[in-house]
Amino acid sequence: MKKKLLHTPEGVRDIYNEECAKKLHLQQTIHDTLKSYGYEDIQTPTFEFFDIFSKEHGSVASNNMYKFFDREGYTLVLRPDMTPAIARAVSKYYMDEDMPVRFCYMGETFVNHAEHQGKLKEITQIGAELVGDNKSDADAEILAMTIDSVLKCGLEDFRLDIGHVDYFHGLMEASGLNDEQIEELMQLLENKNFFGVEELITSCNVPEGVKEIFTKLPELSGSIEVITKARGLFTNEKINNALDRLEKVYKILEYYGFEKYVSFDLGTIANFDYYTGIIFKVYTYGTGNPIARGGRYDNLLRQFGKDAASIGFAIDLDQLLIVLSRQKIDVKGSTAKTLIIYDVDQTAEAVKQSFISRDHGIPAVTMRKSSRMDMDAYVDYCKKLNFDTLVYITGGDIIRKEF
Amino acid sequence: MKKKLLHTPEGVRDIYNEECAKKLHLQQTIHDTLKSYGYEDIQTPTFEFFDIFSKEHGSVASNNMYKFFDREGYTLVLRPDMTPAIARAVSKYYMDEDMPVRFCYMGETFVNHAEHQGKLKEITQIGAELVGDNKSDADAEILAMTIDSVLKCGLEDFRLDIGHVDYFHGLMEASGLNDEQIEELMQLLENKNFFGVEELITSCNVPEGVKEIFTKLPELSGSIEVITKARGLFTNEKINNALDRLEKVYKILEYYGFEKYVSFDLGTIANFDYYTGIIFKVYTYGTGNPIARGGRYDNLLRQFGKDAASIGFAIDLDQLLIVLSRQKIDVKGSTAKTLIIYDVDQTAEAVKQSFISRDHGIPAVTMRKSSRMDMDAYVDYCKKLNFDTLVYITGGDIIRKEF
Repeated sequence: MKKKLLHTPEGVRDIYNEECAKKLHLQQTIHDTLKSYGYEDIQTPTFEFFDIFSKEHGSVASNNMYKFFDREGYTLVLRPDMTPAIARAVSKYYMDEDMPVRFCYMGETFVNHAEHQGKLKEITQIGAELVGDNKSDADAEILAMTIDSVLKCGLEDFRLDIGHVDYFHGLMEASGLNDEQIEELMQLLENKNFFGVEELITSCNVPEGVKEIFTKLPELSGSIEVITKARGLFTNEKINNALDRLEKVYKILEYYGFEKYVSFDLGTIANFDYYTGIIFKVYTYGTGNPIARGGRYDNLLRQFGKDAASIGFAIDLDQLLIVLSRQKIDVKGSTAKTLIIYDVDQTAEAVKQSFISRDHGIPAVTMRKSSRMDMDAYVDYCKKLNFDTLVYITGGDIIRKEF
Repeated sequence: MKKKLLHTPEGVRDIYNEECAKKLHLQQTIHDTLKSYGYEDIQTPTFEFFDIFSKEHGSVASNNMYKFFDREGYTLVLRPDMTPAIARAVSKYYMDEDMPVRFCYMGETFVNHAEHQGKLKEITQIGAELVGDNKSDADAEILAMTIDSVLKCGLEDFRLDIGHVDYFHGLMEASGLNDEQIEELMQLLENKNFFGVEELITSCNVPEGVKEIFTKLPELSGSIEVITKARGLFTNEKINNALDRLEKVYKILEYYGFEKYVSFDLGTIANFDYYTGIIFKVYTYGTGNPIARGGRYDNLLRQFGKDAASIGFAIDLDQLLIVLSRQKIDVKGSTAKTLIIYDVDQTAEAVKQSFISRDHGIPAVTMRKSSRMDMDAYVDYCKKLNFDTLVYITGGDIIRKEF
């Protein structure tokens, strides 16, 4: 009974001490970066009406959401994703604003994945949404912020993979595939099952030009030359517009000096249905999961009554923390602190000394000395709990020990 | 339909722009304060197994919790309160630690109050727990941190009301009241319905000495003299121990220089069943609700298998934000920022200028100038969205406008 009581539910966890301090430090670093790009803060509720995230809004699948009821019987869900919530809020408060608005956020999101995948079901996301700007400059700004944020956290060896949903849509228009077949194809692409993709395409009588592309998908990921390569293969209006856009965005990222982190992946598939333009993910070694992702969603706000082309991104803080640790990149955690122990008649002096320490920026704990414990026991305690200085106040003396 | 989609569920809300920036600033200020007292960070999951907060643990009433199921059919709840969650985590990770451990936290808690009270159902709490220390010094430390945190946020005119659960328990031991009557009495006391209290006490044949106290309850709140006054009325061992403890704690708070913020309220009732010693709330004008509260809970961890006397407190950040605004106390919010607009051939220069601005600590937004908008429109936009500088990059020129 008591054993069971100590557990957290499947897929969620405690984080504490050094690891938690590092997480908060990364959060602060990224938040400072987003603010420096002029983004304002927003917090939306942890749960929302189910409709905000329903299928037509293109967020997470319904059976992967945590659902419950309010007192009136309406279905509530723990937000699985921030973007639809911010879209709702911006639609509400900026319905008549024609110019862009910029918001950044930090908060938990919840996806109730099917079991045994080992994925976290509650993660902390920090990200930004640029609402009301359809230009390639806006795409570049969001990509630059993503790169800048990751760099500021100390990660240098990473890759921002960019794709465009209209490359795939353009191919599908020309493919003659029905919705069911497209759905199947997307599944195969998402799993990078290129053998399965080729098999499906061959069996479905897809036009030669389109078929060729699906056999060459692995070649359509890499540096900017990928765009040139794609222009030499089958294209139509949708595809050409997508390729033009990617090129423009890349050009602007050169002005930012961030082009070296960029890679293209034309075979990438949108993980949310609401994406309408460029989509991207950040990868690095030490994890197969992206540490950040985002994309353009020009139609999402229309469903809340506001016509505003938009783009955003989110960093998965838990993934980032794991990756930095695996890559042995130093992140500021807890600072060492001072333990002040004192005889009971020295309480006033101990309190005084603790304030002096805090005023000097050194965290200090005061603790009345127990007669049952000798100094060695306190030294052990200091070493275990991240104290680098032990001060003992006794009689008129202040005895200091540093480790 | 679209109208409804814009709403948040009953009792939760969006917070954005200046108000949100202020909330984050307060959070940072308090977090810095708690860290300066040597507290380590901890984050527990947003939801836990129901049992962690069940009646026997003395947290919120079951019907006021948001409940749902995991895939295995276990009942989960959104945490209504942080203390039992931290108690669980510390029991798990520090089961064999005999010495004190100190943790601080920030996070959302959720109480599904019955309707129409206008209370927020999701609030942000920031607080600390000192686990494994039963001394009056520990009580004083937690009270001092509460006071220090509130002071650091700029609030000066407030009152920390301290009581002790054993004052009431001592009276009940001597009262001859049954559990049902005690329950009723607690309700009346919680609502400060002194007329109802007197009526109940009179009708129940309570011994004269105890009865006298209940007619004098309003006199038993105020400065340290309250303790002396209480010693002149009915006492027993439990009551004397409680009064001794309060006096000791007050004495230590004098060393901190914080005694002037302290007031006593012997009629106060514990709002969580797990409290076993001193209990306290912070009040100020501008709201009837406490902005912080806490207390000693020496038996709570035993239910998770660890024997550790403990005490903690939490600040209700949303209440604090409201109060500071009503008292017109300045809190640092968003900093003014620069809007850089540019002709399309000046994109590189605009990006360069934006980085220069950010490097100087001034947030900067870049925006390609629309041919449909004149400068006046951009000036209006700046005024509306908290920009204090407008820079226009055109040809070889940089035109600057400050507001």
